[in-house]
Amino acid sequence: MMNVGQWLTRVRKESPLVHNMTNVVVTNFVANGLLAVGASPVMAYAKEEVADMVRLARALVLNIGTLNETDVEAMLIAGKAANEANIPVIFDPVGAGATAYRTETARRILREVNISILRGNASEIASIAGEQVRTKGVDAGDVQSDLVDVAKKAALMFRSVVVVTGKDDVVTDGERIVIVSNGDAMLTKVTGTGCLLSSVLGAFAGIGDDMMMSSVAALAYYGVAAEKAAKQAKVPGSFQLSFLNALHETSAEEVDQYARIQGE
Amino acid sequence: MMNVGQWLTRVRKESPLVHNMTNVVVTNFVANGLLAVGASPVMAYAKEEVADMVRLARALVLNIGTLNETDVEAMLIAGKAANEANIPVIFDPVGAGATAYRTETARRILREVNISILRGNASEIASIAGEQVRTKGVDAGDVQSDLVDVAKKAALMFRSVVVVTGKDDVVTDGERIVIVSNGDAMLTKVTGTGCLLSSVLGAFAGIGDDMMMSSVAALAYYGVAAEKAAKQAKVPGSFQLSFLNALHETSAEEVDQYARIQGE
Amino acid sequence: MMNVGQWLTRVRKESPLVHNMTNVVVTNFVANGLLAVGASPVMAYAKEEVADMVRLARALVLNIGTLNETDVEAMLIAGKAANEANIPVIFDPVGAGATAYRTETARRILREVNISILRGNASEIASIAGEQVRTKGVDAGDVQSDLVDVAKKAALMFRSVVVVTGKDDVVTDGERIVIVSNGDAMLTKVTGTGCLLSSVLGAFAGIGDDMMMSSVAALAYYGVAAEKAAKQAKVPGSFQLSFLNALHETSAEEVDQYARIQGE
Repeated sequence: MMNVGQWLTRVRKESPLVHNMTNVVVTNFVANGLLAVGASPVMAYAKEEVADMVRLARALVLNIGTLNETDVEAMLIAGKAANEANIPVIFDPVGAGATAYRTETARRILREVNISILRGNASEIASIAGEQVRTKGVDAGDVQSDLVDVAKKAALMFRSVVVVTGKDDVVTDGERIVIVSNGDAMLTKVTGTGCLLSSVLGAFAGIGDDMMMSSVAALAYYGVAAEKAAKQAKVPGSFQLSFLNALHETSAEEVDQYARIQGE
Repeated sequence: MMNVGQWLTRVRKESPLVHNMTNVVVTNFVANGLLAVGASPVMAYAKEEVADMVRLARALVLNIGTLNETDVEAMLIAGKAANEANIPVIFDPVGAGATAYRTETARRILREVNISILRGNASEIASIAGEQVRTKGVDAGDVQSDLVDVAKKAALMFRSVVVVTGKDDVVTDGERIVIVSNGDAMLTKVTGTGCLLSSVLGAFAGIGDDMMMSSVAALAYYGVAAEKAAKQAKVPGSFQLSFLNALHETSAEEVDQYARIQGE
Repeated sequence: MMNVGQWLTRVRKESPLVHNMTNVVVTNFVANGLLAVGASPVMAYAKEEVADMVRLARALVLNIGTLNETDVEAMLIAGKAANEANIPVIFDPVGAGATAYRTETARRILREVNISILRGNASEIASIAGEQVRTKGVDAGDVQSDLVDVAKKAALMFRSVVVVTGKDDVVTDGERIVIVSNGDAMLTKVTGTGCLLSSVLGAFAGIGDDMMMSSVAALAYYGVAAEKAAKQAKVPGSFQLSFLNALHETSAEEVDQYARIQGE
């Protein structure tokens, strides 16, 4: 339906620097994943330098998976600097809904920083948007309300592209809706695959102005790579390795061929 | 001698949420290891949220491998909240004996929090219990005093099940003694295998009330998986991957078949 | 030209404890890498214990990849304790030149601690030495001035052995120059290979007094292992695993056979 592979080609050609402020569980995996994609990762957390660092980058990724007050203050500084410099900010509200502190911090970041792309699972997005939902730890719980409606509501509320990932991924800017149906359940057996996806959304956002389409392209690519890896590896240790390989090996042509995208 | 495989079956069925406050070296490996076991990992460190998070969990794992004052304060908050909610707390005093700060912090945690399972190597447990021993960094040194006696003494002193791991693992509640002899020396070639074991002890403790037997079952399972992995991989990079795979693939039947357990 | 393999033999025999204060992205990889080499890693960051810990170690490695004020203060304490105890200090100024904070912090550490070995890429070393150069994030930019001159200048300025890594590695104490030409471009596809190299330089420095020769030996070994791994793995996920295996498997004889070393 749309030529999504070209986004991957451009990411690999331009190798955008992505500034990640992410959690301590996934830093290594995110850095290696971005390298495998063909982007350039940098991690920097100190309030003394994040504004300087983000100005060198093409995208900023904020992830509250192991948040603390010091890091949140630095995220706000980096986010505002990114906003001033017109650098897209991707926000991954890991575990929002699990504790009041996470939910409130997520809302604070959304209030003080203009977020270009908000990515989470259904329960995280619902809890931020004020829907009644309960999460178990940082994994997805059940969302009662209709997923697309929640995504649209959040997009309008936060004036952001919203990406709700799950078996099918929903992408919306509040008006348009696109569903991406690539991926594999093995992704849930390796920690940080959601966090890495948020950083990959950053890499793709860094090379273009259409956050909606860059997100769709990133999701299709990521899912196609996961499908490729799952053909080679059925157990979690091997899958993690195969997935990093697949992120490197998946071609633009394969993305175009295997992408399952519905919508506008 | 005892039906230990059934514990693994229950862990996989119930997928207990394990709240880990562990060190920055091993977070990724611990999260992936718990996923491979079939449990649900969560990491959270902020004093603002740890009490809320631990109440969602079935076990709390405290690990001082890269301790600092901020994290220790949060560990005490989480530990006390776990005690109030009757959630088992597993404590891994990484490197106790190596520096005064670690030894004192380990004792402080044991004083202020009721620990269900204390797991360490011989030198860590001995140093906490006041035996004369010298550790080299965070690895095991030589322990002069008899290992079982030290374990029993620590168990009575801290009113905890004590697990001393090494070539043979000692499990005691101060009266009963069980020796588990599974495992492989390759475990010493990969960082965090002790830390992950502590978190696996947490997963098993989370589904039952008998900390002694859940620990024996976890040790047997972990050791059998290591033996399985060591058959496939003789070098450290490959072993780490094979071990994650083996944690996923090892069946309850294999645990029952290959467990080497002596004692009551 | 020189018998470099013997250094590896000694590292494996003595298994020096290396105290690493490194960044959150690479801690796991560095620990596993040092184990694969045959050394003993320890990570400790708290100001309360770093002086005690470093006195147990044979080398201290400081790495500012994800620096913050708390860690920098602790690095200074550890560095001074190492100096007093005559323990070599290796410094990796990750990202110096990318932000003012990094450059200034790197200079501060070099001012307050006697560094035995300073290792960085060309742009990092040039920016610390006051050369005009621009880095993109933490990766190497273009260096206008002649690389060997910059390395020599830095060595004299900081009274340190300086190792500038790239396609060819330059080692100098300000007078002697040695060029090591082993390695493979796959090293740039895995995060933390520079950080791990700094820690391996620490392991080799820990067993001898000639920082110049221990560095040459470490570089040759590391590069030969990378070449070996690159023969088995052409994609980043697999390369990371193969490289850890190769660090374990590479023999002293292979280092002597394949080392490409020029200079005095």
